[in-house]
Amino acid sequence: MAVYTEVTDDALACFLEGYEIGRVVAFRGIAEGVENSNYSLRTTKGDFILTLYEKRVDPAELPWFLGLMEHLAAKSLPCPLPVRARDGNNLNQLAGHTAAITTFLPGIWPRRPNAAHCAPLGEALARLHVAGTDYAPTRVNALGPHGWQPLFAQCAGSADEVQPGLTAKLAAALDRIVAQWPQHLPRGQIHADLFPDNVFFLDGAISGLIDFYFAATDLFAYDIAVCLNAWCFEADYSFNLTKSRALLRGYQSVRPLDPAEAAALPVLCQGAAIRFLLTRLYDWINTPAGALVTRKDPIAYYRRLRFHAQTQSVADYGL
Amino acid sequence: MAVYTEVTDDALACFLEGYEIGRVVAFRGIAEGVENSNYSLRTTKGDFILTLYEKRVDPAELPWFLGLMEHLAAKSLPCPLPVRARDGNNLNQLAGHTAAITTFLPGIWPRRPNAAHCAPLGEALARLHVAGTDYAPTRVNALGPHGWQPLFAQCAGSADEVQPGLTAKLAAALDRIVAQWPQHLPRGQIHADLFPDNVFFLDGAISGLIDFYFAATDLFAYDIAVCLNAWCFEADYSFNLTKSRALLRGYQSVRPLDPAEAAALPVLCQGAAIRFLLTRLYDWINTPAGALVTRKDPIAYYRRLRFHAQTQSVADYGL
Repeated sequence: MAVYTEVTDDALACFLEGYEIGRVVAFRGIAEGVENSNYSLRTTKGDFILTLYEKRVDPAELPWFLGLMEHLAAKSLPCPLPVRARDGNNLNQLAGHTAAITTFLPGIWPRRPNAAHCAPLGEALARLHVAGTDYAPTRVNALGPHGWQPLFAQCAGSADEVQPGLTAKLAAALDRIVAQWPQHLPRGQIHADLFPDNVFFLDGAISGLIDFYFAATDLFAYDIAVCLNAWCFEADYSFNLTKSRALLRGYQSVRPLDPAEAAALPVLCQGAAIRFLLTRLYDWINTPAGALVTRKDPIAYYRRLRFHAQTQSVADYGL
Repeated sequence: MAVYTEVTDDALACFLEGYEIGRVVAFRGIAEGVENSNYSLRTTKGDFILTLYEKRVDPAELPWFLGLMEHLAAKSLPCPLPVRARDGNNLNQLAGHTAAITTFLPGIWPRRPNAAHCAPLGEALARLHVAGTDYAPTRVNALGPHGWQPLFAQCAGSADEVQPGLTAKLAAALDRIVAQWPQHLPRGQIHADLFPDNVFFLDGAISGLIDFYFAATDLFAYDIAVCLNAWCFEADYSFNLTKSRALLRGYQSVRPLDPAEAAALPVLCQGAAIRFLLTRLYDWINTPAGALVTRKDPIAYYRRLRFHAQTQSVADYGL
């Protein structure tokens, strides 16, 4: 949940004069998302989301993210379309922050994903990958394999406080995963963070894909691995093969995996597990113990990592 | 900011089947309000607010609050109208909490109130007082003068840590204010917490009065004193006489104060200042030091108290 920056009504009215979307009718902070400040904005011309970018996002990278969203929306992906101001810019300044207005997407994100969500999810992910192929600018995935070792170095000293022995186990897993990491799989624009709270459904169909601020140019199949981690484990950490089969079949109905991608799924899933494990571990260690914000448990991803470390092939994911 | 309770899409869909307001189209947590979990809910029939009541609110008191809102809305006050389910109830159960749906009100609350806001505010407050006169059920104001001493007793031991000498000064002020407290002023239903974030404006007019969960049956003029504290001080704690004059004139354009009410304003304003000082002090002391929630500074109300303690009459408030 996040509204970090307060926007005065005068500043908002002034900001909106730069756009052709009418005058403010309602304006409420949204209690979701942790990186930026998001507001639900209703104007005399419709509904929008106003985002103020906070310090975790590098302003220099924003044109890449917004360009990708614009590109995907133009190809009918249900992602937020950045609204351009009268001067043509889709990024402007508000309350001392870089800010953007995007279109409002209907739907609800599934608090308890079930198998019926996973086929449309897989399809949507493949459509995203296909639609992004002719978006030419690239972005290095800062949270890809090259980023894991430096991130781990910042947490290693405290990992054993989270779980005894965790440091050594993570060090070994990292070495193994990075050594096995595939180099020549199909690449392109990936979402890289397509968790349930970034996917809206309406009447059983996907109505929105949001939060592109971890998107990057990386292996398509790694994006599938992120989704398998995010959508296919139960609360008791058991892996739900029905969900993963539905996800993979949905994906392949749009973009069939090549054999090398399928073969790499076990190590890609381990990589995705360790990526979220490391960022959660970092946040866990750097969040004050008494803080009232919810720290996401890193161990949930250690459990996932252990599952993926014992899979043999794509058959263990239902294909 | 507050979404404490997570509502699953299935539970929400099931809950809405009890109402005649259509099916869910969108559902987002609202990052405002600190007592309850509030969601912006769009259905196929319109926009609503879903509130889940958290532990600070006594479920036994909810019918009184919702009844007041229904009563005021029926008299055209722009306050949320609780929506009744098919079974006639306006309170139901969702995700283990008592929950209510109310109508959506347009507008924005003023982040930086100016004098132009204060006349319509005063008018709306007087309209609320007049409209509530034939709402028969009563509710004791738990945060009225009888509640201050017990609340102070829970903070007194730590008040000096917030500001050296504060305990003794508050004890003396409390004794003086309670001894002078007027007993026979006009009474009725008051909002008791009409801060800027509870008042929406649209095109310069009030479009919404929200958050009635501190409302009670108490002195009308005390409600004015709450607003004078909440709306008429600048960031440097200076008192803005233009704002208070506008507020009082706006109020009197609907409901003229009687001479005893006007004469009591200085002590009522001290009482309102100490009421917010004490709850802020309590929260300050009971919020972990490292917590990322914003603690509201109790000293801001000590400064207000000092201002009001040196006023002589209603003339010092601009009348």
